[in-house]
Amino acid sequence: MTLPRLALLACALALAIGSAHAQAPAPAKKGKTMQEAIDASTAADWRTPDPANTLYLDIAGGRVVIELAPQFAPRHVANIKTLAKAGYWNGLAIIRSQDNFVVQWGDPVDAEKEPAKVRSMGEAEKKLPAEFTTAADVDFTRLPDVDGWAKQVGFVDGFPAGRDPKAGTWLAHCYGTVGAGRGNEPDSSTGAELYVVTGQAPRQLDRNITTVGKVIQGMELLSALPRGTMGGGFYEFQDQYTWIRSIRLASEVPEAERTHLQVMRTDTKTWEALVESRRNRQDAFYHFPVNHIDLCNVPVPVREAPKAP
Amino acid sequence: MTLPRLALLACALALAIGSAHAQAPAPAKKGKTMQEAIDASTAADWRTPDPANTLYLDIAGGRVVIELAPQFAPRHVANIKTLAKAGYWNGLAIIRSQDNFVVQWGDPVDAEKEPAKVRSMGEAEKKLPAEFTTAADVDFTRLPDVDGWAKQVGFVDGFPAGRDPKAGTWLAHCYGTVGAGRGNEPDSSTGAELYVVTGQAPRQLDRNITTVGKVIQGMELLSALPRGTMGGGFYEFQDQYTWIRSIRLASEVPEAERTHLQVMRTDTKTWEALVESRRNRQDAFYHFPVNHIDLCNVPVPVREAPKAP
Repeated sequence: MTLPRLALLACALALAIGSAHAQAPAPAKKGKTMQEAIDASTAADWRTPDPANTLYLDIAGGRVVIELAPQFAPRHVANIKTLAKAGYWNGLAIIRSQDNFVVQWGDPVDAEKEPAKVRSMGEAEKKLPAEFTTAADVDFTRLPDVDGWAKQVGFVDGFPAGRDPKAGTWLAHCYGTVGAGRGNEPDSSTGAELYVVTGQAPRQLDRNITTVGKVIQGMELLSALPRGTMGGGFYEFQDQYTWIRSIRLASEVPEAERTHLQVMRTDTKTWEALVESRRNRQDAFYHFPVNHIDLCNVPVPVREAPKAP
Repeated sequence: MTLPRLALLACALALAIGSAHAQAPAPAKKGKTMQEAIDASTAADWRTPDPANTLYLDIAGGRVVIELAPQFAPRHVANIKTLAKAGYWNGLAIIRSQDNFVVQWGDPVDAEKEPAKVRSMGEAEKKLPAEFTTAADVDFTRLPDVDGWAKQVGFVDGFPAGRDPKAGTWLAHCYGTVGAGRGNEPDSSTGAELYVVTGQAPRQLDRNITTVGKVIQGMELLSALPRGTMGGGFYEFQDQYTWIRSIRLASEVPEAERTHLQVMRTDTKTWEALVESRRNRQDAFYHFPVNHIDLCNVPVPVREAPKAP
């Protein structure tokens, strides 16, 4: 299901129009296409996300799979896991879809007007520190390309990241990045209200808000939701909400109901080849050599886990 | 309708969660917020797009307004105008929506399997040169920020643009940019098949395909369409298509049925203030100063034209 979609990114705009034109000769190939890089991968190029750090968001349309990033936001991720185990979000809703920006879910009850109706967070922490950057020694695979938002950019365990050698590393806001909504105070997020980037990478949020993970499957279930018509893309009426059947940790879900995925490792030679296939497209469609890719335009391949033989 | 949406981008993620926290004091302000820049504008900061270079794409959900860019692609735009006047697209369909990439419309008939059924392009040209860059002396307002895809980036008459002083200027692929689908040959586009960027800016297409304009209103009618399940996001079945009621030039539409919009000029002091409001957010939500913006994250404000007094 997943690989064919990635494979076809390559021939994205190649659609013959009207009468058939003779095909131009393909330029001499210097490297792999993305599909060739994926096809050449071996088992060692893939990793299986930890079920204890994987969230399933189940809605009527299907399942969205999120990999959490405790290496970037340990306190928030711990809180999110506590909330998921307690079933905090089950029956709550996606309450916001702002075009070219984010979707967001949480308790639809207005905390100011009806504070008594806001769902209890139970054992979860009500106050957390901001976790905008990590100073931890993370395994960072740097991209060779310039970025206007960060001194360095690259990938940490499959997560797009910015880095300032003096200030730390952070999970960057790219398409699919999951963050913890907050008020104006930097430390006002708890993880109870999560958003997912659905638009042009809002990198201005980097280091301004705590990011906690990334959608690894099912983005189209969120990105194609009708846009909310209120300010900020909030829905005006309850019947516009997308109701959350459940948000569960994969480790809490019976084995037979799990979605078994693998994510390409971002610290291998195969990954290097994949990055290069994005920096200089080898597909016949492209004629102008770019020799560049931006952080948020390198897709990290995801595949169904191979069945045990 | 338009300004309030822009205004609210600023307070995008500011949503109090759970119990009310005391508001942190706002940092000392050094410049305008985007809304303040817009509010301070005068009539001279706005321009009215030429109805002869404005397309209305009318679908069941409403109207998408596209401003054409003859300064970048004169031959393609001339062809598109010929096709619109002839009603070429009326009754055709949006046949593709690929997640995080593009939507595309054209003749759903398969030109290879049923060539006789492909709609005639009438008086339009069947063969055009590629118009990837323009060497014309265009009025380019440069952004001060680094960009990995182009030596310089900025705006030309409200269109996001890349520039290489030696090679020319091009309309860049940002959210809402409209381009002319083609096959593998650089000169295989005619404008009959158009796409609109709905995902992370695919700047690798810059200088590889002819861009012809930009959506200035109604993006959410395209970006929230269900994703196609075939390769490249093409729809598998006819009942998944979004049918095109009509694509018309505004100048061919009776005055009473037109959508009267104004676009902020991108060569004024007001524009400079707006760009600066994006480079360094003045909103209370932001704490980390970025001092950067990327080309595709500067929204060019659009408003309803003021009524004549």
